[in-house]
Amino acid sequence: MKTIRRIKAVQKILECVRGNRRIAFVPTMGAFHEGHLSLMRKAKHRGDFVVVSLFVNPLQFSPGEDLDIYPRNLNSDKKKGEEMGVDILWIPSAKELFPSPYQTFIQVEKLSQRWEGESRPGHFKGVATIVSKLLQVVSPDYLYLGQKDYQQVRVIQKMVRDLHFKTTVRLVSTIRETDGLAMSSRNGRLSSADRKAAPILYRALQVARKMIRQGERKSQVILEATAALIRSEPRVRIDYMAFCDPETLEPIKHLEKRIVFLAAVKIGAVRLIDNIILKLPGQSQKQNKMH
Amino acid sequence: MKTIRRIKAVQKILECVRGNRRIAFVPTMGAFHEGHLSLMRKAKHRGDFVVVSLFVNPLQFSPGEDLDIYPRNLNSDKKKGEEMGVDILWIPSAKELFPSPYQTFIQVEKLSQRWEGESRPGHFKGVATIVSKLLQVVSPDYLYLGQKDYQQVRVIQKMVRDLHFKTTVRLVSTIRETDGLAMSSRNGRLSSADRKAAPILYRALQVARKMIRQGERKSQVILEATAALIRSEPRVRIDYMAFCDPETLEPIKHLEKRIVFLAAVKIGAVRLIDNIILKLPGQSQKQNKMH
Repeated sequence: MKTIRRIKAVQKILECVRGNRRIAFVPTMGAFHEGHLSLMRKAKHRGDFVVVSLFVNPLQFSPGEDLDIYPRNLNSDKKKGEEMGVDILWIPSAKELFPSPYQTFIQVEKLSQRWEGESRPGHFKGVATIVSKLLQVVSPDYLYLGQKDYQQVRVIQKMVRDLHFKTTVRLVSTIRETDGLAMSSRNGRLSSADRKAAPILYRALQVARKMIRQGERKSQVILEATAALIRSEPRVRIDYMAFCDPETLEPIKHLEKRIVFLAAVKIGAVRLIDNIILKLPGQSQKQNKMH
Repeated sequence: MKTIRRIKAVQKILECVRGNRRIAFVPTMGAFHEGHLSLMRKAKHRGDFVVVSLFVNPLQFSPGEDLDIYPRNLNSDKKKGEEMGVDILWIPSAKELFPSPYQTFIQVEKLSQRWEGESRPGHFKGVATIVSKLLQVVSPDYLYLGQKDYQQVRVIQKMVRDLHFKTTVRLVSTIRETDGLAMSSRNGRLSSADRKAAPILYRALQVARKMIRQGERKSQVILEATAALIRSEPRVRIDYMAFCDPETLEPIKHLEKRIVFLAAVKIGAVRLIDNIILKLPGQSQKQNKMH
């Protein structure tokens, strides 16, 4: 594994690789957990040349959010990347990514408004901007993204399509702790009591899945049940819970076809998100294909 | 010259060209006049593979502007492109450039605010968005832009740099009618009396140049003289006139080093812009190098 900082150095290597091997790209903010590693593993498994970027992007944090305390474990990340067989670990500098006076921003307008966008103003503008920059430098054949940040995946997929990037997004399932809590760099900031309470979020998603399996189709009925479950845990506050169209992320009342159940909660000072994608019975079991 | 509509067809040809020849790109909205032809000629003269795009971009017109009456002369444009030795004339479809529901937009924030940005809200958002799309498809080595739209050049150059496009912008001098009027697709909409009045804009720029040569350094003094000249022509209304830093486009009071004199006027229903770049005496005569 080569650890590289400069854009030109990354591009020089990729120039030689391109044409011979497919390039797979995993953008990260570091502090690798099993979620990140599963993205790298999937990419590596296909025999592609794997580029991982590590950059804690200040643009996607709102003022007052956890930018300053976002975990940073460079040595451990390097070791894990090496073990995964990553080919290039790219650690760009803010100075090179944001030549002063930096002025250019990308917005995926409608998809960025709801849910995370409402709770974190400017977040997806920061995400779209940084990812477009990383894609421009790496020009990967495949872009690996984790399902845990589902709205982020949709925003990036839409940007990729709208701006004609020649990359294919590969969505990788959420990796969970044994009690169901979705892996997240933020889990480490939960107090021990909060950590014990946190899996209620996943249990709520499972309740929704079960009710749908049993035939419930009214989103309101399920939302009441899942909200009641979460409220039974006084340490956890609901930010939002919604059944949405998996393409547009608009809420749906009557459940049919494919849906995504999105949820965000706050536990102490820590904000956690999770989701499940559901294919309702009667639908053909097509692959998750998204545009 | 091949005339092509589909993105994939353009990319297929360019894949074979790339590596063998440099690719030069001239984005246009058609209705070719000598200004466009000079861009193509310069590109061709260097022996590069010349791609010209022709797309009247609705995004860069505000409601109530002249989108509907913007001149369209496809057959004549094809003939002229052929004569210039253009290799590909790319006429994209709106449907392919803006897959519905289109959501992704690019803004170069500070540079887009003043001057044209103030008079034409949303204009540079439309320009940056379309040019980023065209660049993503063509990936040219060189991007040819005309100096007449100086602020547009600066917005695009900043975007190219900020978003890490691997293209070099080549600025081509404004082509003028014999009476000094800058070539523009909009000149054809001037009535005969307005057409006679229009060169006052260029004459004002020449007055500024002369006053500077004679030692004047206070922008206010020159602006008063040029405004008085233009006001002497009752058919012409000033939109703005300003001496600016050629990089930031911020206005400057005391003239030194390199400056750009930007001007916009309205004559009847037609809005015309023009500019001159001035290197003040005492400065080394470096090439126009911009970042």
